[in-house]
Amino acid sequence: MGGKLYDRMAVIGCGLIGSSVVRAAREKGAVGEIVVFDASEAVRARVAELGLADRVEAEAAEAVKGADLVVFATPVMAVAGAMKAAARALEVGATVTDVGSVKGVVAEALTAAAPDGVHVIPGHPIAGTEHSGPDAGLAELFEGRWVILTPRESGDAGYAAAVERLTAFWEALGAEVETMDEKHHDLVLAVTSHLPHLIAYNIVGTAADLEQVTRAEVMKYSAGGFRDFTRIAASDPTMWRDIFLANKEAVLEILGRFTEDLQALSRAIRWGEGDKLHELFTRTREIRRGVIAAGQESPEPNFGRDRGKH
Amino acid sequence: MGGKLYDRMAVIGCGLIGSSVVRAAREKGAVGEIVVFDASEAVRARVAELGLADRVEAEAAEAVKGADLVVFATPVMAVAGAMKAAARALEVGATVTDVGSVKGVVAEALTAAAPDGVHVIPGHPIAGTEHSGPDAGLAELFEGRWVILTPRESGDAGYAAAVERLTAFWEALGAEVETMDEKHHDLVLAVTSHLPHLIAYNIVGTAADLEQVTRAEVMKYSAGGFRDFTRIAASDPTMWRDIFLANKEAVLEILGRFTEDLQALSRAIRWGEGDKLHELFTRTREIRRGVIAAGQESPEPNFGRDRGKH
Repeated sequence: MGGKLYDRMAVIGCGLIGSSVVRAAREKGAVGEIVVFDASEAVRARVAELGLADRVEAEAAEAVKGADLVVFATPVMAVAGAMKAAARALEVGATVTDVGSVKGVVAEALTAAAPDGVHVIPGHPIAGTEHSGPDAGLAELFEGRWVILTPRESGDAGYAAAVERLTAFWEALGAEVETMDEKHHDLVLAVTSHLPHLIAYNIVGTAADLEQVTRAEVMKYSAGGFRDFTRIAASDPTMWRDIFLANKEAVLEILGRFTEDLQALSRAIRWGEGDKLHELFTRTREIRRGVIAAGQESPEPNFGRDRGKH
Repeated sequence: MGGKLYDRMAVIGCGLIGSSVVRAAREKGAVGEIVVFDASEAVRARVAELGLADRVEAEAAEAVKGADLVVFATPVMAVAGAMKAAARALEVGATVTDVGSVKGVVAEALTAAAPDGVHVIPGHPIAGTEHSGPDAGLAELFEGRWVILTPRESGDAGYAAAVERLTAFWEALGAEVETMDEKHHDLVLAVTSHLPHLIAYNIVGTAADLEQVTRAEVMKYSAGGFRDFTRIAASDPTMWRDIFLANKEAVLEILGRFTEDLQALSRAIRWGEGDKLHELFTRTREIRRGVIAAGQESPEPNFGRDRGKH
């Protein structure tokens, strides 16, 4: 398949997603040399120990020198600072992208700092796990998952070619690529990712803080449904703090809709309106079928998590 | 292990849980004969076809005749009617239990209708999948899971012995058994199961009804977290309608706490209070660790659902 798409890739931030990009690009032979920068000395040491990259640099500017692809994979609020530090060393003609879950603020930060002749193409792979750090990365993380690119309006043929090349890169890593407007991305992700995380963090927090039910009971009897929520509520705290701060407006808008619906549902329970409940619970079942049909979920019961028991 | 604990088990209602009890009891040799009743003719035909039981009866009273263990496994609001239909045929000395997710109303219904000399011991295995019907049952469903029994106050030695025997039965099926007060059970389950389902149904409903984001987008980009919620929102609508009607008070109480917490979280986002967010997201991570340590969850990333990809 394909072969080399970039001569040198610099990855800025090497946690779960950054190190998955590194592993996948290496495995698929999608890039020549791989250079990694991370702000944390411990992470840099670990990346070196794991032998993930050809070079590990202690300065972002050193890492991006001579790279034709630069991937920012830091928490979203850290992108602006990292880009500023790296900008002066970027090569003309290089593609700069990122993997952040919010595109509006990140796109602005990248574009504002980018020197002329650098192609900024914000991006977001809809993939992950609840684990963090360079050890958590997986070469197959992007297989069958969607990557959304939010290219800027541009009549430039060089830019269009850069978008095409970046699309081919993600496809080489096993993903499917879609492009859309930044604002729409941030609204879609508020629904499919940010609100689910917010709700999961909240319910786990509520359960942990009750006086009448102990934490030990919550954990012991969690197989009734609660345990599902603990997975995404175990995601990286810094990454998620940044996402909520960076996508405040869309998150609060979608949360408003959720809260309205929850009030109506609560009233249906209070008034004993069984038919209303049954109707909603039947509709939601269809959405599950759609998610499975879209290839984004395991059809096995319980996510297949009990496969080991069989 | 163990051997036969009851000579004849009658299972009233043969969906996911009923048919799992049948399969597990058979596999472990925990009972002699197995008789099944289900109100649905289609389910009875399917149970016969699958060869799950020794006999399938079209009347609850016929099914419980001569049984020393009777397990009600219907939706919780159907237990009272089924018990009334079966009561006259129950044997003196028989144990009557159930598997319902709400204990207060079920315990009352069973006790009110039970003839003298029958031991009513309400029960609830904290186990399941999002699938329904007799085909969905799994012999290993209860392995490593908790079963809560809520025995009535009784000085009767016969009753105490019946509780011990029912405990041994569930242990033979691979479960661990805990006893507690009905009211406490209903509060604990409101936290660990009923609220999570309510929230999942609600968020999936909200996402399906938005104007600005299409259903196709919701499904396509669901790997960002949303897909997790679709699993429990695909659970049986009748079963869950009944649970919310039967445990209204505890569910609304816990929902009130959830809503308060969500308002505080929403305010923290609006005001940009990153430290508060980070603190909560760190605490919730610990709960996940506790759930895994309690043996109630897979430690693999993404519930191990992507194992096939590796």
